[in-house]
Amino acid sequence: MKIGVIGGGQLGRMLALAGTPLGMNFAFLDPAPDACAAALGEHIRADYGDQDHLRQLADEVDLVTFEFESVPAETVAFLSQFVPVYPSADSLRIARDRLLEKSLFRELGIPTPAFADILSQSDLDRAVAEIGLPAVLKTRTLGYDGKGQKVLRDPADVVDAFAELGSVPCLLEGFVPFSGEVSLVAVRGRDGETRFYPLVHNTHEAGILRLSVVSADHPLQALAEDYVGRVLERLDYVGVLAFEFFEVEGGLKANEIAPRVHNSGHWTIEGAECSQFENHLRAVAGLPLGSTAKLGESAMLNFIGEVPPVVEVLGLDECHLHHYGKAFKVGRKVGHATLRCADRAGLERQIAAVQALQGQS
Amino acid sequence: MKIGVIGGGQLGRMLALAGTPLGMNFAFLDPAPDACAAALGEHIRADYGDQDHLRQLADEVDLVTFEFESVPAETVAFLSQFVPVYPSADSLRIARDRLLEKSLFRELGIPTPAFADILSQSDLDRAVAEIGLPAVLKTRTLGYDGKGQKVLRDPADVVDAFAELGSVPCLLEGFVPFSGEVSLVAVRGRDGETRFYPLVHNTHEAGILRLSVVSADHPLQALAEDYVGRVLERLDYVGVLAFEFFEVEGGLKANEIAPRVHNSGHWTIEGAECSQFENHLRAVAGLPLGSTAKLGESAMLNFIGEVPPVVEVLGLDECHLHHYGKAFKVGRKVGHATLRCADRAGLERQIAAVQALQGQS
Repeated sequence: MKIGVIGGGQLGRMLALAGTPLGMNFAFLDPAPDACAAALGEHIRADYGDQDHLRQLADEVDLVTFEFESVPAETVAFLSQFVPVYPSADSLRIARDRLLEKSLFRELGIPTPAFADILSQSDLDRAVAEIGLPAVLKTRTLGYDGKGQKVLRDPADVVDAFAELGSVPCLLEGFVPFSGEVSLVAVRGRDGETRFYPLVHNTHEAGILRLSVVSADHPLQALAEDYVGRVLERLDYVGVLAFEFFEVEGGLKANEIAPRVHNSGHWTIEGAECSQFENHLRAVAGLPLGSTAKLGESAMLNFIGEVPPVVEVLGLDECHLHHYGKAFKVGRKVGHATLRCADRAGLERQIAAVQALQGQS
Repeated sequence: MKIGVIGGGQLGRMLALAGTPLGMNFAFLDPAPDACAAALGEHIRADYGDQDHLRQLADEVDLVTFEFESVPAETVAFLSQFVPVYPSADSLRIARDRLLEKSLFRELGIPTPAFADILSQSDLDRAVAEIGLPAVLKTRTLGYDGKGQKVLRDPADVVDAFAELGSVPCLLEGFVPFSGEVSLVAVRGRDGETRFYPLVHNTHEAGILRLSVVSADHPLQALAEDYVGRVLERLDYVGVLAFEFFEVEGGLKANEIAPRVHNSGHWTIEGAECSQFENHLRAVAGLPLGSTAKLGESAMLNFIGEVPPVVEVLGLDECHLHHYGKAFKVGRKVGHATLRCADRAGLERQIAAVQALQGQS
């Protein structure tokens, strides 16, 4: 079976590493000459709107999936004429637009911060009056890793904020005084079978995920599964979906969904019986889902900007390196390490050891 | 770091799957147009004696390693002029020649079946008179998966046996009434650091490995490590080496060594903290070795001739498919499944379930 992937970054690379042992081949459509997934499959170097090359991809593969959600709707619609596309155009449309996403949460009874649709500075002024400060102004589409958003703390921050984000459609979100950020990675098959990985506690810095620690028997696991299950069912979703929540006074408020394999699920490569990457491929290919059970205690640390010397990372016990083969660049995700330990104390020690390599301790 | 691999079959493919997350790239030199490792790296399609292409490989990579031992000595010598080659020419020379291999065992005090060098039918007649029947006549080089050998049970089998194996240099081995076959996979770094995986019990059919079951606290582990350690040290070996033994009356008799990653070590991908493939690459690249500790109880079942329907293999819990992407052909290794279970009873159940898919139960 040949799988077409829109995007050829590290998520595509890890999909190919998981799918090759299942007998799958891969083609990646990505305009970047140095797309790091290209080492593991065919690289169709073209823009996401290039219909000739999209058609070529569709003709070559059995199905198409995505490694990022900011795919133009036209691309998805075009591909869908020729080849099965998972997740569906509708799932992508909603997940890439913060207004549609938040509206879906509200419609499904999933708590989420107060929000308002912002199409102008006067919309923003009105919404700030209603929701209050602090609040966060985010572009409705194309934001990631803290890009495309601005925190509004004082009235002065509000002035011209709409123009500062490019005068594009935005969403204002009320600030949530959360005690933690958690994510739930789920997978749903073509037949509706759904499985959930354990909740993961995430730590961000400057909007970029730094550390994910897998929880054991988190008291909010069942609640999170309930919320995520509602979204999966409504969207008739196929594949892996990640759902980020704020932990708020013993409950959860929905932050956002990602209709793809997710950075906070990278620990599953070593830490779960079947990884999110393999499970995504099983789901889109109509194969039985794999077990989401965890093995031991796990954590994932991102390498941002640079990977510490390989000899040092591999010198740590229970540490697994994932080097994306990308050029090092400030603020860029270029690799990660996963830790899988027998117990929590060992995990904490090893987290500190990796952080020391990153110059963070 | 770019790694050159002589051979582009499934062992090369699994080396690339293990090395890509370490930031390594791969080039495979293999004359076969459909070399299955080619999906994961550059494919230099050339004969193993093609010096122009060997030179191209040497110029492109940081070091060269092998996925099979029947590499012409001239190939290794030629490459060694331009690029580091691991394991060494000497290690390969000995491992690919049954006479040199057995002589080394004898020299190092490692018990091995009686053997004799056979260069003619009269040599064979004399050796049979001395060693007795049953015995096994094997070509000194190029044998694998039961090919290049003949079991001699009666005097009638001895007549013309030398010609039947092609009148090439052979070894006669006394038959060992063994109770089991076990193998030890070891890895030795450039600095001499050595680690051993647990002993694995192997079951062959028609000369081809079918099932490997990892032992827990095998009483002969320490003895096997002692024997393997002697060979590794004498050869100043770098990389993974597999050592096959016969279990004989509570002791071990050396059968043969393979100077490479080995089929009986495939279980390590899921079943050990660091796989034999990653550890081989760590060793040849001069990186710290990874832990050889096992995770749970593991087994590996080969798929010979065909892979059962993927949907059925993936429907089994705790089962991991490794499909080599090779054309199906009678007697050809085209994939394997690994099982990693919490306990022995679960493992036995799952072995039976995979065997049922193979039509063996």
